[in-house]
Amino acid sequence: MSTTWVPVVAEAGFGVDNLPYGVFSPQGQAPRVGVRIGDHVLDLADALGDEVFARPSLNPFLETGRARWSEVRARIRELLTDESHRQVVEPALHPLERVGLHMPFAVADFVDFYASEEHASNLGRMFRPDTEPLLPNWKHLPVGYHGRAGTVVPSGTPIARPCGQRKAPGEESPTFGPSTKLDIEAEVGFVVGTGSRLGQPVPPKDFAEHVFGVCLVNDWSARDIQAWEYVPLGPFLGKSFATSVSPWVVPLEALAAARVATPAQDPEPMDYLTESEPWGLDLQLEVELNGQVVSRPPYAGMYWSPAQMLAHMTVNGASLRTGDLYASGTVSGEAAGTRGSLIELTWNGTEPLQLSGGQPRTFLADGDTVSISATAPAEDGGRIGFGAVTGTIRAAECEPAG
Amino acid sequence: MSTTWVPVVAEAGFGVDNLPYGVFSPQGQAPRVGVRIGDHVLDLADALGDEVFARPSLNPFLETGRARWSEVRARIRELLTDESHRQVVEPALHPLERVGLHMPFAVADFVDFYASEEHASNLGRMFRPDTEPLLPNWKHLPVGYHGRAGTVVPSGTPIARPCGQRKAPGEESPTFGPSTKLDIEAEVGFVVGTGSRLGQPVPPKDFAEHVFGVCLVNDWSARDIQAWEYVPLGPFLGKSFATSVSPWVVPLEALAAARVATPAQDPEPMDYLTESEPWGLDLQLEVELNGQVVSRPPYAGMYWSPAQMLAHMTVNGASLRTGDLYASGTVSGEAAGTRGSLIELTWNGTEPLQLSGGQPRTFLADGDTVSISATAPAEDGGRIGFGAVTGTIRAAECEPAG
Repeated sequence: MSTTWVPVVAEAGFGVDNLPYGVFSPQGQAPRVGVRIGDHVLDLADALGDEVFARPSLNPFLETGRARWSEVRARIRELLTDESHRQVVEPALHPLERVGLHMPFAVADFVDFYASEEHASNLGRMFRPDTEPLLPNWKHLPVGYHGRAGTVVPSGTPIARPCGQRKAPGEESPTFGPSTKLDIEAEVGFVVGTGSRLGQPVPPKDFAEHVFGVCLVNDWSARDIQAWEYVPLGPFLGKSFATSVSPWVVPLEALAAARVATPAQDPEPMDYLTESEPWGLDLQLEVELNGQVVSRPPYAGMYWSPAQMLAHMTVNGASLRTGDLYASGTVSGEAAGTRGSLIELTWNGTEPLQLSGGQPRTFLADGDTVSISATAPAEDGGRIGFGAVTGTIRAAECEPAG
Repeated sequence: MSTTWVPVVAEAGFGVDNLPYGVFSPQGQAPRVGVRIGDHVLDLADALGDEVFARPSLNPFLETGRARWSEVRARIRELLTDESHRQVVEPALHPLERVGLHMPFAVADFVDFYASEEHASNLGRMFRPDTEPLLPNWKHLPVGYHGRAGTVVPSGTPIARPCGQRKAPGEESPTFGPSTKLDIEAEVGFVVGTGSRLGQPVPPKDFAEHVFGVCLVNDWSARDIQAWEYVPLGPFLGKSFATSVSPWVVPLEALAAARVATPAQDPEPMDYLTESEPWGLDLQLEVELNGQVVSRPPYAGMYWSPAQMLAHMTVNGASLRTGDLYASGTVSGEAAGTRGSLIELTWNGTEPLQLSGGQPRTFLADGDTVSISATAPAEDGGRIGFGAVTGTIRAAECEPAG
């Protein structure tokens, strides 16, 4: 790890090899763009004298494109490693505990994929027990769908238990009320910086021209609402009440040491999905429920890479916009304790988790707090931190079924 | 019909009872908000001296809320009916043929419903011939899903035939190439003006507080791509390449005479979907293919009303934003020649349409132009016009399957 004159704990993952971007508000000031270094946030408008950072969203900077992203990152590293800049830069550093953190970017479109073979197979086994767990299209294309951009919220936003219709298989007719199967989905999100023109597909090799960075996503899911509504047009209200994202967006440039090949893909992907260089990522996720680790999903095992997802999303000519967010879908591994949703960890509620204090837990209870964090290998053999996306469940406000 | 001093042809549907909003550019000027009167566009920033209209999108005006929408409409009617204003207002009128028309609003989220019983039943019969045409949830809730907001385009935008994966039922494995089943969906769209807070459902009675007006939508669909990709998460690339909207947004206030009850709903809708006043709409659509009318879908027969769709979309606490667009899904009637998609009109290509000149047509050919228009009853017994949403198919640019 390069050394910085800012006090950092190497193991914490926020040294100069990381430098993730977010939107923060120093006391009494409007939100603006900063990068995290150790337990401080560097005010970029102050430190670089560039007004593109004096905004409440990363989007204007994202629009400047890859060459500028690189220049800015190099300049920040220089300011934070060269002791000669200390006197000038130090006043632009704000202790993390004294700032507010906000939504880091304005979401244009939100797409959610389904790229973990384990997750897709597990859900297939639960929901369609009489058929093959994977549907016939799954290994030919990264299955995905559009979610609600307007309800993507920053980490820390309380999550109200949604109300809606649900009908269990044995029931005669649907009932209305608060979801009784409120779940999480531990996911990784990709933030588009540079848009593309309508009619112009983006091949896998152009991934890093368009995608700026990576964040963590919790795609809250009401399984009972989802199970009743989702045929034939897919998930809707079971997902659209809230999707939480982490406050920090780790730039792709910080992830060079995390790049790995995807698992072997069979059948061979079509040409438009073929990668010339690997864009799998060796991120290690961790899911905490009320402070207790309940899962450690490994991102490296995801079947489809983010470059393949991007190529698929645009192969029909769909354009990209600055601020588009696409997420991987639930990250689930093969081993015990590596699944990224409660429906998998408790096998649809039939095998409760035992929380400390002897509390059994199937789906989320009111008051539960979920925190998803991740780290990735750094170039010097250390780790890079993603921080965490957290949320606490609030009781539903609808009337129970009448 | 009230009389205006502007020359209008009563039968054309653009008198002072209509006054739809759009974004236009007078020669050499930047796009701004106007209302259509006869074959003219009234420049609202000029006529009303309000800078909220000197913008390239309706959104800032939409944000001002229902009371202001009403005031502005009343003032425009006064200016256009009272001869004493003529001298001052006339310079703000631009002949329609001399202005450009643009995307009328910036789309926040786009949701597409599936609210025609005929359409859902027809597609069920074609895609799932061995089961009941309607899935069990269909009469309990308005089925819908999120579409891609970034590829909603204004009327007149050329539509490139999308490429993608498809696999016909008899084929061993999927192939890649231009869609061979490019289709239309004739729909009606609802434009949200006033947003809502996260966690706060919008009941049917508040429909007119939030929805500003109505436009026409052509939800272009690649049926072969859609059929292969859509399980289990719904339509994605088969729809996301383009969705066209009409240049004019007809305010709800202009549609008082068009309001009708929905058809009888059985089973009775749940409380949260129950309307206190009817919001069905007696719009008459017309679909032209290369200038020839191929269908006249009646909107009055739609099973779910737009107020019910809005209530459903928010019952889980999902918030609304200014610029949200939700569409009805394909409008199809029972009678011959009233279906709103080619897949229904040609029964999945097995019963070609005969175009004039003896040309058979199943799905869209390159160069085809589709135009969807609509009218609604006006208060004096005449009709209100919606104008049209049009698009011409361009050849695909992908390489054929290798």
